[in-house]
Amino acid sequence: MDFHIDNILNDMQKDDFNAYLLTGFTNVEYISGYKPTSFAFCIIKDNPVIYTSKMDMELAKNNSSIEIKEYESYDVMINELKEEGIKNLAIEPTLPFSTFVRFRDDFEIDSKTYIDKQRMIKTPDEIEKITRATEIAQRSFLQLDILNNENTEKEIAFDLVRYMIENGADKESFDTIVTSGSNSSLPHAIPEAKKLDRPILIDWGCIFEGYCSDNTRTMVYTEKQQEIWDIVAESHDKAIKAIKPGMKCCEVDKVARDVIADYGYGDRFIHSTGHSLGLDIHETPGFSPRDDTIVEKGMVITVEPGIYLEGEFGVRLEDTVAVSKKGNVIGELPLNIV
Amino acid sequence: MDFHIDNILNDMQKDDFNAYLLTGFTNVEYISGYKPTSFAFCIIKDNPVIYTSKMDMELAKNNSSIEIKEYESYDVMINELKEEGIKNLAIEPTLPFSTFVRFRDDFEIDSKTYIDKQRMIKTPDEIEKITRATEIAQRSFLQLDILNNENTEKEIAFDLVRYMIENGADKESFDTIVTSGSNSSLPHAIPEAKKLDRPILIDWGCIFEGYCSDNTRTMVYTEKQQEIWDIVAESHDKAIKAIKPGMKCCEVDKVARDVIADYGYGDRFIHSTGHSLGLDIHETPGFSPRDDTIVEKGMVITVEPGIYLEGEFGVRLEDTVAVSKKGNVIGELPLNIV
Repeated sequence: MDFHIDNILNDMQKDDFNAYLLTGFTNVEYISGYKPTSFAFCIIKDNPVIYTSKMDMELAKNNSSIEIKEYESYDVMINELKEEGIKNLAIEPTLPFSTFVRFRDDFEIDSKTYIDKQRMIKTPDEIEKITRATEIAQRSFLQLDILNNENTEKEIAFDLVRYMIENGADKESFDTIVTSGSNSSLPHAIPEAKKLDRPILIDWGCIFEGYCSDNTRTMVYTEKQQEIWDIVAESHDKAIKAIKPGMKCCEVDKVARDVIADYGYGDRFIHSTGHSLGLDIHETPGFSPRDDTIVEKGMVITVEPGIYLEGEFGVRLEDTVAVSKKGNVIGELPLNIV
Repeated sequence: MDFHIDNILNDMQKDDFNAYLLTGFTNVEYISGYKPTSFAFCIIKDNPVIYTSKMDMELAKNNSSIEIKEYESYDVMINELKEEGIKNLAIEPTLPFSTFVRFRDDFEIDSKTYIDKQRMIKTPDEIEKITRATEIAQRSFLQLDILNNENTEKEIAFDLVRYMIENGADKESFDTIVTSGSNSSLPHAIPEAKKLDRPILIDWGCIFEGYCSDNTRTMVYTEKQQEIWDIVAESHDKAIKAIKPGMKCCEVDKVARDVIADYGYGDRFIHSTGHSLGLDIHETPGFSPRDDTIVEKGMVITVEPGIYLEGEFGVRLEDTVAVSKKGNVIGELPLNIV
């Protein structure tokens, strides 16, 4: 059996849990290799099993490394678990309330992050896939020739996705952001059908063999924009340099945040410094003021400080770091594109 | 205040609930016009409010029809609610367990589908947007010239998305399915980097002003494929014709399912007959054997019977119906494309 499952079983044993229910699609994919398209109940126990929908049976059987059963009803599934002697059930923190309700009368239940703890630490193979995704995304970005681009934000976003797919990506890893001018002060701006204004902020990534990439670059043109860009670049560089196994995530956030605060823009850095990524574009832990998770080798976390001047413009610079003793940045795209 | 909020407040009053917590992005969008990009807690009460992240404040203030507050912490939010005299809290069935846990010590909690009940019945404006989305998607499909297409499945899927965006869509409403040959027996197949085999199954849709469309067409070539296509078409047509306000959803499913069963393929129709759509691609109710919701005017539900012959091929035909006394199909794309 996969060592991830063994590790989870060990964690469960310490807490005296018999079974662990996973329903999140990427959690099921992580455990089995099969990504549900409708719904699935993956139950980790000594003999793990996935109950899935009739419509997914062929897909699941072709892809899952663990046993697949066809879901019939909650009653059938719950009875089978009880017949095996299962008395308590660990659940994912993200489990929908309505699913929790279906199990709570039959099992003692508590939410546990065993799966998140496994997914936090990427294997070399996972880091390789994230690296491939990042390389594809960065090569595609350079194909845009952004500095001489007469297309609209929406068209450029679309071209970028096309290049990523042509270069081997499965798809974009989130809605590609191409924004410019005053809209760039919205961290999650939506591309519009208008030609590029300035500055230009592009936040993009792709999925390669299930794994995500994430980068942001901002191209600036005025003295004021350059001043803000320099501060964000300093924050970005210092945070990346600071990352070491053994630190707390919030300490990395503080390095990035302090630079921006020292220049007087502390209240205009309106989000966390970074998030983990993998099968999902947002995973735990994150470089956030409230996250005291210890940084470990194998974590893959973004560093993306930004300054957002409402009504004027925003600047964000983002790279993804695979934590090692050296704190390696993934990809080789320069910060400064001009 | 919006009549949807008034209706929900009326429903809450009947159950003696003071407040209703919504966190699903499209639920928040439905209520306020603001679609969160990070997280948000929308609380429906006499004076409704949305607590949102610092990074979404500008977007939220620009788009929300109800009051916006910046989220600081669970403690602050919960204390503010308690100070207003709120003692119990209705929640969405989809609320993550970990969020439920944050509220359960301070409020009496139960999950309620007030919001789903509102979203089930589309206004004329919502139906208009779904119709526009469907028209864009269908026009784009015809641009593909699928019968003379030398591209790969993946390229065709990409072209279709490009046409939809060029024709005014925001984006695709789900991962576009272009599949062919034996892969078509997977209801949720992923397009591959291979030229079209036969039959060809395309399941696609787009989003226009937030609202989704959904259609499927299958192009068949052999006698056996045509035989299966004819059965699915009969099932599709009879189910659509049967839809009338006052029926149960499961009765519509039965009409579609009985046709396929009568030809001996009952066990190869491996999913429900249809699902509602709107701001989300999958909404309630659905034409499923287990859904006894009464069909009402204003519901917008797909009809998509299919027959899947594992290892051979699959056929699915899908249209979207806006329920009225006449049971109107949205869009005018013929079932038979050849």
